[in-house]
Amino acid sequence: MHLPQITELLRQHRSIRRFTDQAIDPVLLNDLITAGQSASTSSYIQAVSVVQVNDAGLRNQFAELAGGQKYVQTAAEFLVFCADLNRNSQRASRVAGEALDFAWTEQFVTAVVDTALFAQNVVISAEANGLGCCYIGGIRNNPQRVTELLALPDLVFPVFGLCLGYPDQSPERKPRLPLTTVLHKDRYQSALEFAAEIDGYDAHVRDYYERRSQGKLTMTWSEQMSKQAQTQTREFMQEYLKTQGFMHK
Amino acid sequence: MHLPQITELLRQHRSIRRFTDQAIDPVLLNDLITAGQSASTSSYIQAVSVVQVNDAGLRNQFAELAGGQKYVQTAAEFLVFCADLNRNSQRASRVAGEALDFAWTEQFVTAVVDTALFAQNVVISAEANGLGCCYIGGIRNNPQRVTELLALPDLVFPVFGLCLGYPDQSPERKPRLPLTTVLHKDRYQSALEFAAEIDGYDAHVRDYYERRSQGKLTMTWSEQMSKQAQTQTREFMQEYLKTQGFMHK
Repeated sequence: MHLPQITELLRQHRSIRRFTDQAIDPVLLNDLITAGQSASTSSYIQAVSVVQVNDAGLRNQFAELAGGQKYVQTAAEFLVFCADLNRNSQRASRVAGEALDFAWTEQFVTAVVDTALFAQNVVISAEANGLGCCYIGGIRNNPQRVTELLALPDLVFPVFGLCLGYPDQSPERKPRLPLTTVLHKDRYQSALEFAAEIDGYDAHVRDYYERRSQGKLTMTWSEQMSKQAQTQTREFMQEYLKTQGFMHK
Repeated sequence: MHLPQITELLRQHRSIRRFTDQAIDPVLLNDLITAGQSASTSSYIQAVSVVQVNDAGLRNQFAELAGGQKYVQTAAEFLVFCADLNRNSQRASRVAGEALDFAWTEQFVTAVVDTALFAQNVVISAEANGLGCCYIGGIRNNPQRVTELLALPDLVFPVFGLCLGYPDQSPERKPRLPLTTVLHKDRYQSALEFAAEIDGYDAHVRDYYERRSQGKLTMTWSEQMSKQAQTQTREFMQEYLKTQGFMHK
């Protein structure tokens, strides 16, 4: 199979936050999850579970805890992607005849990576089938509540949600950092070495926001990163993860 | 664009570990990285850097530290994907006029997720263009050495490598867990509830390994997970990450 158009599909990616009422065929949804499962998995751990949230009451609660994102409530599908070492723990410990340890930071990292690779396959497969998607990192506003809502046991971490549906909008693509600042050759080059390129990018992002907001929002990328570093820290995260059995060492 | 064949491409994914001598056109490589950049990024942080390793001496050292994986040395391209908060720290702190804090666990998680989403776009774009890939988690055998080899500053974590090239093999696809054990409805269902399904899967994996190894390897998935939980823990990971400035809190 040779599909160079896919590179164009990937470049055209935008998050979709407004959807039509059209439902997603359950056969297609299963195909998307199967595509997700086909992604690479670190040493075959397959440390991913997906919770499909259909219940309207649950959806409302997710929309609220994610910061009042209405599309979480109304999208055709809302999936919660979990880094899942519980399954491995259950199965591996049974073989060993004793409780094995899954509290190493390395194991947490591999499970989170597995989850993101899986989800990105779902997203691409969805977009290739005419759907639009929006990752919902906002579920990490209150991971403890998500854990309760979905009855997540130890060693399961809800990394992000995903809204899926047929797009009812076509937003502009959000500009990305210049390629040269991201692709390094043989050694890392600091942002200090790329000051001029990133300054230029900052101006480009400011224009983008001004245009999209009809002049109401003026913010460079660096300004946005600055504001965010001071606000979106979710300071409870390490304690939450330890409560879930991750990263004790 | 409507490309349902892409779902089939994703399902056909296998890691490729033997490549032809054919080089990758630099224009194509840039396209792949651009596709990676187009992936979703948590709150626009774009916390990813890629180091393209061309230098033969460096390649040899990577092949060795990854556990003697020869294809790391010989693949047309070898890329190291880094979760990079250093750039954000540099830029955001300059705007703020003071050193901002990027040591929260939440920030680490979002940077790792960004890196995996980016990399998976590169992989899919590569495969759609006839290339084969293999993620190299083995660079985490010695992240401190990787950090030195690539001169990675604080707040840059080499998450995995990626070998890229034109395939010179066509291995069998590795069987995945049954869909029903991975896709949950409205609440998490424990592996205990799926004991029969996973037992059946275990038998399937044992057959797969026996067939591939001409009877030399007999191992279920659960047995493999058990062995791995006892060996592949990379116990230094938390300390290394803290040394790099991540996850102090």
